[in-house]
Amino acid sequence: MLIDNIKELFLKIKKGNPLVHHITNNVTINDCANATLAIGGSPVMATSIEEVADMVNLANALVINFGTIDDSTYEAMLRAGKAANKKGIPVVFDPVGVGATPFRTERAIDFLKKVDVSIIRGNATEVFALIGGKAATRGVDAVEITISKEELAKKTAQQLNTIAVISGKHDVISNGEETVKIGNGDIWLTRITGTGCMTASLIASFAGITDDLFSAAIAGMSVMSLAGERAKNRLIDGEGIGTYRVKLIDEISMMDSQIWEEGVRFL
Amino acid sequence: MLIDNIKELFLKIKKGNPLVHHITNNVTINDCANATLAIGGSPVMATSIEEVADMVNLANALVINFGTIDDSTYEAMLRAGKAANKKGIPVVFDPVGVGATPFRTERAIDFLKKVDVSIIRGNATEVFALIGGKAATRGVDAVEITISKEELAKKTAQQLNTIAVISGKHDVISNGEETVKIGNGDIWLTRITGTGCMTASLIASFAGITDDLFSAAIAGMSVMSLAGERAKNRLIDGEGIGTYRVKLIDEISMMDSQIWEEGVRFL
Amino acid sequence: MLIDNIKELFLKIKKGNPLVHHITNNVTINDCANATLAIGGSPVMATSIEEVADMVNLANALVINFGTIDDSTYEAMLRAGKAANKKGIPVVFDPVGVGATPFRTERAIDFLKKVDVSIIRGNATEVFALIGGKAATRGVDAVEITISKEELAKKTAQQLNTIAVISGKHDVISNGEETVKIGNGDIWLTRITGTGCMTASLIASFAGITDDLFSAAIAGMSVMSLAGERAKNRLIDGEGIGTYRVKLIDEISMMDSQIWEEGVRFL
Repeated sequence: MLIDNIKELFLKIKKGNPLVHHITNNVTINDCANATLAIGGSPVMATSIEEVADMVNLANALVINFGTIDDSTYEAMLRAGKAANKKGIPVVFDPVGVGATPFRTERAIDFLKKVDVSIIRGNATEVFALIGGKAATRGVDAVEITISKEELAKKTAQQLNTIAVISGKHDVISNGEETVKIGNGDIWLTRITGTGCMTASLIASFAGITDDLFSAAIAGMSVMSLAGERAKNRLIDGEGIGTYRVKLIDEISMMDSQIWEEGVRFL
Repeated sequence: MLIDNIKELFLKIKKGNPLVHHITNNVTINDCANATLAIGGSPVMATSIEEVADMVNLANALVINFGTIDDSTYEAMLRAGKAANKKGIPVVFDPVGVGATPFRTERAIDFLKKVDVSIIRGNATEVFALIGGKAATRGVDAVEITISKEELAKKTAQQLNTIAVISGKHDVISNGEETVKIGNGDIWLTRITGTGCMTASLIASFAGITDDLFSAAIAGMSVMSLAGERAKNRLIDGEGIGTYRVKLIDEISMMDSQIWEEGVRFL
Repeated sequence: MLIDNIKELFLKIKKGNPLVHHITNNVTINDCANATLAIGGSPVMATSIEEVADMVNLANALVINFGTIDDSTYEAMLRAGKAANKKGIPVVFDPVGVGATPFRTERAIDFLKKVDVSIIRGNATEVFALIGGKAATRGVDAVEITISKEELAKKTAQQLNTIAVISGKHDVISNGEETVKIGNGDIWLTRITGTGCMTASLIASFAGITDDLFSAAIAGMSVMSLAGERAKNRLIDGEGIGTYRVKLIDEISMMDSQIWEEGVRFL
């Protein structure tokens, strides 16, 4: 059932070509645009407070990524988030680095109060900080925390009334009632920048063409992990992380329902 | 004659190494820098209002790209544009997303009033919005409009006293008197971000080493379309849009007068 | 002795995984993040003045890059630099484009007054401008100046009480007493954007795991020049600067003490 729903999304996304508005960081913004295109969406990245609401009104989904926030982009994020809620399109929130500094954590909690977020995607430490947990962080990197990722995802989904996607060695997606684990992936996904951010773009692209946001979250997350695994397998001797990045985008762009069904491993 | 003029530009650009100043978006800024280098120019990307005029004074051409404008970058664009006009170097304007939001359209029209633009490069919808046309837009993507691209290019060139370059399935370049159509290209040029922006960088690089701006516009546009076609032909099984991006830059960097003359198709 | 010190750094960096905070330009910010990861560090790129000091407190080294400074990022740089000095972590300064405009030169000199900089990495023109020299510049590109690079490096190190790294056809590193020259490299390192910026990230990554900053500076500089040479040698017919960029990152990510020792050429 879930498998069939997700398989259908691969067909719908190519036809629907959802417009995905991003307010994101300037480190991986190009990667996010290309990941959106690779899966069949159209990216827009306007950030001026004077036009974000107008741009959201043209969009099918919104990504908010905290990677390099400052006061000005945060204001744009609030306007965009409220416009998305008003229009009824899904908001995907990527709390990059939350937990690392008080500024980030406070803004994230403020954002969740003011905007209804459909899907949150982060690593365990970031998501843990969102629900009030304290963990030792190292910048934007994850460290281990004291509750299982399954519990964390479920608790986050329930407490924040959202769908929680936690990326890691295995990925966990929970809507508070159902919790799904994905066993795909490769450690090299952590050796390049942007794979988390691109995952949020993939999730939002799927979310832009369906009301079944739980399936969209699973689709986006599993596409990244499966593509990351396939790209690694395609590397030949003498190829490092530069080539890995290129082949990762290749694999996202070639992903379809058949490749996905044959490759995805639910745990 | 035109062919010979353009062939000569390939030699002149390697010798002249024009400095091309950009005030552009932060999605494709890296692509624009590398495209400029690939064709033989040198990119500069300063945006601080305190130094843009000084930087323009060192440059041979200026690119203004509206991809992620806000009030602060717009002010820098005006200063840079006026400095370019004063110095007498060509200004290439890429009206990304114009027509999608009132903010963008108003700023674009304001910019055209205050700065003499030598060459405008956009897709049909964006250019249509510049001359007062109304079209349904989807973010920064083009949709079909009601006049032919040939008419649109010619009318834009005449009305705005500029050279108009309209990218699309076939490309149209007009100076208001002559109109040229290019048949090269590949649909995959629309499957990665930045190909339009990079085209403006290529055009500006050529415009920085000649007074024949019509030839420069044709040269820059046709290099991108031909490179896009050649990159696609070089893809092998299992390669997707990640590899396509890499090979596109490869092809731009290897383009010379001979490859160009053998490959370009005027319609 | 120096060789052995540097060989050891390759092992220490993989274990130590230094967190390298950057306040850098938005042209090559993604390249810097990936170069940091490729060598074994973890990049962070926060720029909001409200959190830079907190982020620096988590970091092992700080990179300040002037590529696209404006008043707001400059303020963040000062705060980050002071926090780094207070914490006692190394500051690597990349004076991109200094000498090209008064704005850049004044800010650079102001920065050096207010922040203790451990290592400066630039091309000869930029570094020359830092010590009060006047050279004809072309935007962010180097032109020849009137003193030898060896003298310039030594003088800069002494005058500014720092380690000076001058990139070029051969690279020169001086701590004011010892001066080292590296003969590796390839002209193609100048045909793509970001190789200088990435060098600063490599240097800072090494500097984040040792007190021997002179060795760290030599290690970072030589890794880039050797990787650039190896990447060029790996190109096959039909590959241009797009593929070169990818293979450059590949080579950085595969660099270890053995490859380095066999390949590095001190002059």
